[in-house]
Amino acid sequence: MQSDKWQQLKSRLAEVQNIHYASGLLGWDQQTYMPPRGARVRAEQLATLDKLAHQFFTADEIGQLLDDLSVEAANLPYDSDAAGLIRVTKRDYDKLRRVPPALVEEISWTSALGLEAWTKARADSNFGEFKPLLEKIVELEIELANHLGYADRIYDALLDQYEPGMKTAEIQAIFEDLRRELIALVQQIGRKADRVDNACLFREFDEQKQWDFGVEVIKRYGFDFEAGRQDKSVHPFTAGFGLGDTRITTRVDRRFLPCALFGTLHECGHALYDMGYRPELEGTPLAGGASLGVHESQSRMWENVVGRGRGFWRHFFPRLQQVFPEQLGDQDADSYYRAVNKVQPSLIRVEADEVTYNLHIMLRFELENELVERKLRVGDVPAAWNAKMKEYLGVMPPNDADGCLQDIHWSLASLGYFSTYSLGNLLSVQLFDKAMKDVPAIPSQIEQGEFTGLLRWLRENVHQHGRKFTLKELATRVTGEPLQARPYVAYLKKKYGDIYGL
Amino acid sequence: MQSDKWQQLKSRLAEVQNIHYASGLLGWDQQTYMPPRGARVRAEQLATLDKLAHQFFTADEIGQLLDDLSVEAANLPYDSDAAGLIRVTKRDYDKLRRVPPALVEEISWTSALGLEAWTKARADSNFGEFKPLLEKIVELEIELANHLGYADRIYDALLDQYEPGMKTAEIQAIFEDLRRELIALVQQIGRKADRVDNACLFREFDEQKQWDFGVEVIKRYGFDFEAGRQDKSVHPFTAGFGLGDTRITTRVDRRFLPCALFGTLHECGHALYDMGYRPELEGTPLAGGASLGVHESQSRMWENVVGRGRGFWRHFFPRLQQVFPEQLGDQDADSYYRAVNKVQPSLIRVEADEVTYNLHIMLRFELENELVERKLRVGDVPAAWNAKMKEYLGVMPPNDADGCLQDIHWSLASLGYFSTYSLGNLLSVQLFDKAMKDVPAIPSQIEQGEFTGLLRWLRENVHQHGRKFTLKELATRVTGEPLQARPYVAYLKKKYGDIYGL
Repeated sequence: MQSDKWQQLKSRLAEVQNIHYASGLLGWDQQTYMPPRGARVRAEQLATLDKLAHQFFTADEIGQLLDDLSVEAANLPYDSDAAGLIRVTKRDYDKLRRVPPALVEEISWTSALGLEAWTKARADSNFGEFKPLLEKIVELEIELANHLGYADRIYDALLDQYEPGMKTAEIQAIFEDLRRELIALVQQIGRKADRVDNACLFREFDEQKQWDFGVEVIKRYGFDFEAGRQDKSVHPFTAGFGLGDTRITTRVDRRFLPCALFGTLHECGHALYDMGYRPELEGTPLAGGASLGVHESQSRMWENVVGRGRGFWRHFFPRLQQVFPEQLGDQDADSYYRAVNKVQPSLIRVEADEVTYNLHIMLRFELENELVERKLRVGDVPAAWNAKMKEYLGVMPPNDADGCLQDIHWSLASLGYFSTYSLGNLLSVQLFDKAMKDVPAIPSQIEQGEFTGLLRWLRENVHQHGRKFTLKELATRVTGEPLQARPYVAYLKKKYGDIYGL
Repeated sequence: MQSDKWQQLKSRLAEVQNIHYASGLLGWDQQTYMPPRGARVRAEQLATLDKLAHQFFTADEIGQLLDDLSVEAANLPYDSDAAGLIRVTKRDYDKLRRVPPALVEEISWTSALGLEAWTKARADSNFGEFKPLLEKIVELEIELANHLGYADRIYDALLDQYEPGMKTAEIQAIFEDLRRELIALVQQIGRKADRVDNACLFREFDEQKQWDFGVEVIKRYGFDFEAGRQDKSVHPFTAGFGLGDTRITTRVDRRFLPCALFGTLHECGHALYDMGYRPELEGTPLAGGASLGVHESQSRMWENVVGRGRGFWRHFFPRLQQVFPEQLGDQDADSYYRAVNKVQPSLIRVEADEVTYNLHIMLRFELENELVERKLRVGDVPAAWNAKMKEYLGVMPPNDADGCLQDIHWSLASLGYFSTYSLGNLLSVQLFDKAMKDVPAIPSQIEQGEFTGLLRWLRENVHQHGRKFTLKELATRVTGEPLQARPYVAYLKKKYGDIYGL
């Protein structure tokens, strides 16, 4: 054992990790407690920390240590901490080293301008104002992809930043199955739309009581308030600064009950994942979640598969009714369960239900591919967007703000990101099915407001590994099958077939 | 102009400043919102940031740039930003470079152990448990002083860390005058102790109302909640992360009204100072307050000279009575003013009134001097402490916890710190007298709850300069006189002569 070099590598990586954590806390504060006039100096502080983290991580010495230790690591079991450390760190390192710092900086500046232009264009609902910036961003993303490198599709390079090891062609194949099934299901449900009434969700609900109910539920989920907290922010998010400090945020809408609760459950899912890696991984690139897709599988599982499940509401509805006796006095567990699962093709992705959500993602995935393959010109995005909305969801955006300008991602130069949301949805069900097979008591536990069976299974099978395995590796290791659409489709057909009497 | 080198220096210093600010935010969070189990990882994050800031600031390149630019700076006016930048940065740089990193680390570890030992010893009220650590700390502080260097007294080296340019002999001379006057005044007041009744302060006061009243007052003081905020913490403090983000904390005692309000006013005084340097100084070592003593002059001015003044309560008492009609119905502005100014020799420094406070400081200043000059053995500290308490204040600690174990400073290896509290008290009055001379309307403005006259004077004469001048320089520049005890003594004699009818 070249124990000296391992120590050197770990201590350098721990330094980088600590800078990332510090930057993370500054970012959390920016969205929760920072006074408005602190924005300018905060941006500079973040720029300094991010520059240092990048500089320290991409140092030649780290590359040398990784090379030296790779030989030794090659003889260790694939799933050992040491082999994982070298494998994942080298993957990150090579990726960052391949991109010229000048390009990183240009992307960063352009996305700052892009965010500004997008914000204004969206307010004006005028894609034309955003078009020049998006053209620039697409060009930069193509350049970035060329630096990162790819064997098959240019989109692979961008996707790999968010979902390591995943290929465009694989996603296309999965989406192919999914699209057909979803469009059919949406149409079937459309014909029975009036079987679910969710008017009860739009009454007036005291904000503090909503907050408290959410906290009550996530404590049952296993969120440890000694090692985390929840605050308010405009856009809910999860941020972790090491084991012992994982924070979530939520927002509360007085006139739409699902907003706060499901937001809280979603972020709690992310947080439980972040709270669950083995302490031995702390301070290394293995600390954290495997990828955006795996992260989303956790948030969506706790939000939807569990939190929008019939068993969940059997247990929690009586309690919620106690909290809001006037507003929910005319409901029962079953009608409320149906209400929170109403399917409605709509224009806005973030408001979409479980059935239609993935169609929004496919649309974006397809347009992004065409953009970086230069098959679609930026100027034609609005028309292409609207055509797909009509085809997939049967609705037509009346303007750009509710159409191709609705998401922040492109303005931030984050092409390649969207599909991870769908991968997460698919994986959430594939994992949950396996959990139920391994621990058949899970459904009845959930009906009793008891979640330790599920959480323990996730800790053991997913959380503890941190970033050691990719989504694809995890799916196969844990469920014995590659990631696929079938379980998710079966889940939807059963759940919504029952709700809508299909 | 070697403008390239100026740019290089500034950009390196800005980087260091940003790391300090980040570290500051992590420290703020640690005392306000951090979940308990986050403590361990937070300590490591702080250690990384502090190490980097130290490493970057003491880099050879910075020394070289300072040397190169010193020549040019020597030809610039003393009070120019550029000359100040080189002077102050070089002072900081030389100081940090003189101390071997191994010693810094040993002091840091010993103080961590010291804090632990002190906490336990204090809980057990047993000085013996803390003695071995304090012996070690005194030895390390002597070693530190020898590295820092001094011409006259070894204590000078330690003092200079907190109060640049101030000498032990100067403080001794000032304290000499002050001690005699204070002891006499305390005795005079003691004979008329029953002339002030402060029982009304110990009633029950709703915490939120106390909080809101404090916020109302500091908004009038000029605290900008767009560029700062107030939170709760166990020990009140002020933390600034650049212009635009200055935060204070306070604590609220349901059964002691002055705790929250005067704590808030005190921290607000620090914050107004931190909010007031010229924007041009941002990102350099000139951003911030001149020294601990000057900082304390600001906090004590707004807390005591203004906030415990008769004019202040003429304006604010009717409002406070409105907030607490039942608890304060039997008081008027004058009786309340007297209540918050009750003088009472007591054992605990942080609870001491304006008259007795500085006697607590002198005691510590004298013992610290004797310790580092090896005239007092650590084992004899309790006896020496108690003897001085008896001599100066006429009270005798019944145990070590209420005696020589009461303060945290020694456990943190902060010898040399205490006297800055008294220097701040003295300077607060010396500055306030000059402000009234320059702007005679200040007292009548205060009686109308109007503080812009005073704040504007402070901005102009003190705040805008940041760290450019030392306390001694500021005192002379602003008031035309060196720092001295006379104005403070006159202030006390007038105020308390009136209150106690001496």
